[in-house]
Amino acid sequence: MPLKVAARAKVPPFIVMDVMSAAAAREAAGHRVLHLEVGQPATGLPRAARERLTEVLETERLGYTVALGIPPLRARIARHYREAHGVEVSPDRILVTVGSSVAFQFAFLAAFAAGDRVGVAAPGYPAYRHILRALGVEPVTLPVGPETRYQPTVALLEQVDPPLDGVIVASPSNPTGTVIPADDLRALAAYCDDRGIRMISDEIYHGIVYGEPALSAVGLTENALVINSFSKYYSMTGWRLGWLVAPGDMIRPLECLAQNLVISAPTLSQYAGLFAMDCEDELQANVARYARNRDLLLAALPGAGFDRLAPADGAFYLYADVSRLTNDSQEFCRRMLAETGVAATPGLDFDAEQGHRFVRFSFAGSTEDMAEAAERLTAWEGC
Amino acid sequence: MPLKVAARAKVPPFIVMDVMSAAAAREAAGHRVLHLEVGQPATGLPRAARERLTEVLETERLGYTVALGIPPLRARIARHYREAHGVEVSPDRILVTVGSSVAFQFAFLAAFAAGDRVGVAAPGYPAYRHILRALGVEPVTLPVGPETRYQPTVALLEQVDPPLDGVIVASPSNPTGTVIPADDLRALAAYCDDRGIRMISDEIYHGIVYGEPALSAVGLTENALVINSFSKYYSMTGWRLGWLVAPGDMIRPLECLAQNLVISAPTLSQYAGLFAMDCEDELQANVARYARNRDLLLAALPGAGFDRLAPADGAFYLYADVSRLTNDSQEFCRRMLAETGVAATPGLDFDAEQGHRFVRFSFAGSTEDMAEAAERLTAWEGC
Repeated sequence: MPLKVAARAKVPPFIVMDVMSAAAAREAAGHRVLHLEVGQPATGLPRAARERLTEVLETERLGYTVALGIPPLRARIARHYREAHGVEVSPDRILVTVGSSVAFQFAFLAAFAAGDRVGVAAPGYPAYRHILRALGVEPVTLPVGPETRYQPTVALLEQVDPPLDGVIVASPSNPTGTVIPADDLRALAAYCDDRGIRMISDEIYHGIVYGEPALSAVGLTENALVINSFSKYYSMTGWRLGWLVAPGDMIRPLECLAQNLVISAPTLSQYAGLFAMDCEDELQANVARYARNRDLLLAALPGAGFDRLAPADGAFYLYADVSRLTNDSQEFCRRMLAETGVAATPGLDFDAEQGHRFVRFSFAGSTEDMAEAAERLTAWEGC
Repeated sequence: MPLKVAARAKVPPFIVMDVMSAAAAREAAGHRVLHLEVGQPATGLPRAARERLTEVLETERLGYTVALGIPPLRARIARHYREAHGVEVSPDRILVTVGSSVAFQFAFLAAFAAGDRVGVAAPGYPAYRHILRALGVEPVTLPVGPETRYQPTVALLEQVDPPLDGVIVASPSNPTGTVIPADDLRALAAYCDDRGIRMISDEIYHGIVYGEPALSAVGLTENALVINSFSKYYSMTGWRLGWLVAPGDMIRPLECLAQNLVISAPTLSQYAGLFAMDCEDELQANVARYARNRDLLLAALPGAGFDRLAPADGAFYLYADVSRLTNDSQEFCRRMLAETGVAATPGLDFDAEQGHRFVRFSFAGSTEDMAEAAERLTAWEGC
């Protein structure tokens, strides 16, 4: 008897992963590919952290840790909030997670019941919607555009009817890189507190900004669930390590979820994260590289036909409105890869409605690759 | 305004983790503790794998991998089924996961809709029930005892009304260590296929057996979701690595779930698993140690009052019926830890109904610790 596959498991793929496959196929056929499709830093774990880790690998058994994460890492994260944001957070409110992906899942499970409605900006990170749906929570699209720097505002939330149970904010945002201005984030936090809307603040691109530092929701309200990651600023994508700062009354439920759903985050990764937090010089050198890459693309892309770009305050993405070039960004990206070797992500990943007229370029790679990509795109007949 | 914590997030804790905390407190106070409470091998990643890994740590960027897992690891796992079970499995049917914990979650999400009913043996691994509940699936208790070696049977499934949508089998089982006889597992697989019941086969203790090898459901039916882990046989608990063998039509949904919910398993852990699969000698030496520990406890425990033990065909647990000693195994374990320094897990973790009269001893630790624990328990006035 053929058995069913549960409908909720049929979440859409990341289109970027299909682009990655096409790029890999092109590389396998002997062509050079410039990877502007994925948010994967060109660098790995900082060198000094790698060296300290070798000793841990030699000497430690590396068994399970407690579900909340190793105490020195939780304390170190608390210190980070003190130093970077001037905010006191008890380590007791910090849960170390298997990347921010699992942090989102835990946050959604702990904060929302099946049937709850949660606001998500479009364009925005696609996994928000997909995880919410897999858990029976309804994502409510908040269409945002250049007039609010592609970010939700109180005015936008006020229009939603019936009211939301929660809202996800991401600053700097993926795919646009825009930062929510400090006053706007304060207003959003106050509005959510007032209306009983649970705010989930995605801060995984914190530390990668080109102007004012982004404000953390940790200092604004104790009701928010604040999520961060070691993947981006700390350049540790493959280590699958992130964290969650939670309201005090949610820590025990989150701990029990973690015990049951993952047991603990990878032990060696927890040490790696602890050590990486002491590598400020190397990490700042990475940010300086992103800044150079950004400058290079901001100077070159308009000449190549990509002249309508979201203001990239942070993160390492440029979100380009390509509606003057195409009405089908997926086909456009396919052609760009085939004809120039430059891989980029069609906007459909981030915005089902409008994404067909947007393309996301990631400049997380090397400056050499960015320069060559800019040259190839400028010479391209396709746009 | 105080915000709600979602009811589904209120899953029970692992009681074993509370025992671990009490044990840690006792150690912090300067006392020696013998850890028979947790399924944590005394050993870590095999030595040869550790050495090969140092080079990977030095030379690789360790970014994200594809969501299904690195191809050489998926191929190596397929080879394992050929060599250990004489079964051909396509690597395409294998998904590498963040431990078996996440494999269970993905399996439940992909196979069951909210409201579905899934049979779980009591006693059994508590996270099955807790993950199912967090995902809106109803766990249906299958009470099992010594008359069926603490394992579900076709006769037991036939009594369930209304019929089940799925059933979890675990062989060797945690907490009892019993193995489902090959003919019984064949009958269960055929019965499930016949009735459209999705079988989830937990095989994470495969390789740790003291008699006949345990049969894998992989060779019996393509409808089953088969879950395994690097934590136990491969001695890699803290690396959070496992795998799932899935029916062909479930791989794409599972891949999309993985892309969205975890992105990929930790990259260094995937290499570690690949290398560990070549360390047969060291891994077999671990199994030989478990066998010695088991013999030692089977010889000593009856004299200490623990004379009603489940037949431990595999895994590294002895499940003791202590109803002649206590009617409150949680209090009994607390007293045992305080008076002898031996930490063990009350049965309540595994069986909410009958667990108050059972205790689980883990013999995953060192033989010295087992010998000392046996001595202390024999001398104990408490039983």
